Amino acid sequence: MKLDKNTKILIIGLGVIGGSYAKALTDKGYCVSCITKEESDIKYALERGMISYGTTEVDEELIKNSELIIFALYPTTFVDWVAKYQHLFTKGVLITDVTGVKSSVVYKVQDILREDVEYIPAHPMAGRERSGVEYADPSVFAGANYIVTPTEKNSREAIRLCRRLGEELGFARISELTPEAHDEMIAFLSQLTHCIAVVLMNCNDSEGLEKYTGDSFRDLTRIAKINDRMWSELFLMNKDALLREMDRFIEEFTEFRTYLANEDGKRMREKMRASAQRRTLFDKIVK
Amino acid sequence: MKLDKNTKILIIGLGVIGGSYAKALTDKGYCVSCITKEESDIKYALERGMISYGTTEVDEELIKNSELIIFALYPTTFVDWVAKYQHLFTKGVLITDVTGVKSSVVYKVQDILREDVEYIPAHPMAGRERSGVEYADPSVFAGANYIVTPTEKNSREAIRLCRRLGEELGFARISELTPEAHDEMIAFLSQLTHCIAVVLMNCNDSEGLEKYTGDSFRDLTRIAKINDRMWSELFLMNKDALLREMDRFIEEFTEFRTYLANEDGKRMREKMRASAQRRTLFDKIVK
Repeated sequence: MKLDKNTKILIIGLGVIGGSYAKALTDKGYCVSCITKEESDIKYALERGMISYGTTEVDEELIKNSELIIFALYPTTFVDWVAKYQHLFTKGVLITDVTGVKSSVVYKVQDILREDVEYIPAHPMAGRERSGVEYADPSVFAGANYIVTPTEKNSREAIRLCRRLGEELGFARISELTPEAHDEMIAFLSQLTHCIAVVLMNCNDSEGLEKYTGDSFRDLTRIAKINDRMWSELFLMNKDALLREMDRFIEEFTEFRTYLANEDGKRMREKMRASAQRRTLFDKIVK
Repeated sequence: MKLDKNTKILIIGLGVIGGSYAKALTDKGYCVSCITKEESDIKYALERGMISYGTTEVDEELIKNSELIIFALYPTTFVDWVAKYQHLFTKGVLITDVTGVKSSVVYKVQDILREDVEYIPAHPMAGRERSGVEYADPSVFAGANYIVTPTEKNSREAIRLCRRLGEELGFARISELTPEAHDEMIAFLSQLTHCIAVVLMNCNDSEGLEKYTGDSFRDLTRIAKINDRMWSELFLMNKDALLREMDRFIEEFTEFRTYLANEDGKRMREKMRASAQRRTLFDKIVK
């Protein structure tokens, strides 16, 4: 199949990411339908021209007529949905997702999936700290990274189409990783940072701190407004990799603490200079 | 003395903060002079209308004629400067500062200071991750916090004037803390967060991570582009308080790690919900 303006796209799960996909693709001229849980979310999306059609039913006709299905559900809900309703897919449909962990989802879905349907996994590295379609905003994709995580079961055609989808959504950089490499990377770049933010919000409950804070604390805890159901699922599904990253962090943190306790300004400054230098790599791409 | 458009203001140290003060005050109609190290910084500031006059000399006439002197130097440089040149101050001058630690600076300066000069300490809780006047930008003060840290030696008049200065600079919320309370607060809200950012940048040197990163890692490490000389001074001058905060953080982090290792999703979600709820307190004030 090809991705063009006639491709019938179905998004399942109209939350902050599903909604951002819907708006980005509709703005590009695609025809986007959706299946989601809440009638009010459909109403919201229709009023703002984010989708052409939406339903809260598992609409057989709609599913049969869709050529590209994008799952934007919680990880476990995604796996369950495919198991329960894959008999409704039309032959040759391509499915993709936005799930934040890969190894524990991708192989499970590919193993149970019908032979005549292909699932090409992907992870958009952009989001917002709030959940719900009312926070959907495709502008967060500008300058951001998009990762396709194919397995041996994937066709070159599907990989190509999925990369094309990332481009159409507005991502600045499209990469490929194995599901395993993705999960190691995500444990460090995303899950560890979310742990730190949650811990920071819980380790000092002095009253009135908000009157004195600067932007550094605000930045480090922006993501502390966390969706607890989704993130606890993501952490548990990637437990081993995340524990490894947490341990590496504690080790490095303890080393830095020792330098301070010893008043070893020289070593602290070396770490700071290395930090400042490496950080420049991670600046957002501005086009 | 009063703060009005005729008040002769001198800024000593034209870096990112001194420059932002200069621009904010000049934009408000004040007449701002400066003494700083580099001729090129003065040229830069004059060309952009940030100051009325600048010199790299310790200009006796200029200092004598100044009524409000704002020090925007590194902590140790500030103390040394006052010790060396305070004989040049005119009787009744008010001096203030922007120094990021207070107990170890404030009492030292107030102890050595001439009887006929008053030093009212303050700390603007806003800045940028880069240093140098070319990054000066007073818009970072909008919505931000400004803290006056008076001691028993300060007059009510000086406190009032310093609060007024914070308002004129554009800060959204002006508070008062003792130097000791300030340093405890700053150890948590600012110094601990800078430690975390530096540690994060140093604990995983895998190649190519920048291709996959999302905004959470970028946010947590924005301040990792750190001025190593200034921050190592600040850390060492507030060592005990910072070590206490680092230990509290490690303790809470280790607890969260245990929940994950035990697959205790319930407790992880409790921490996440507490985190999300507390974080709303810290949103920036939008006027």
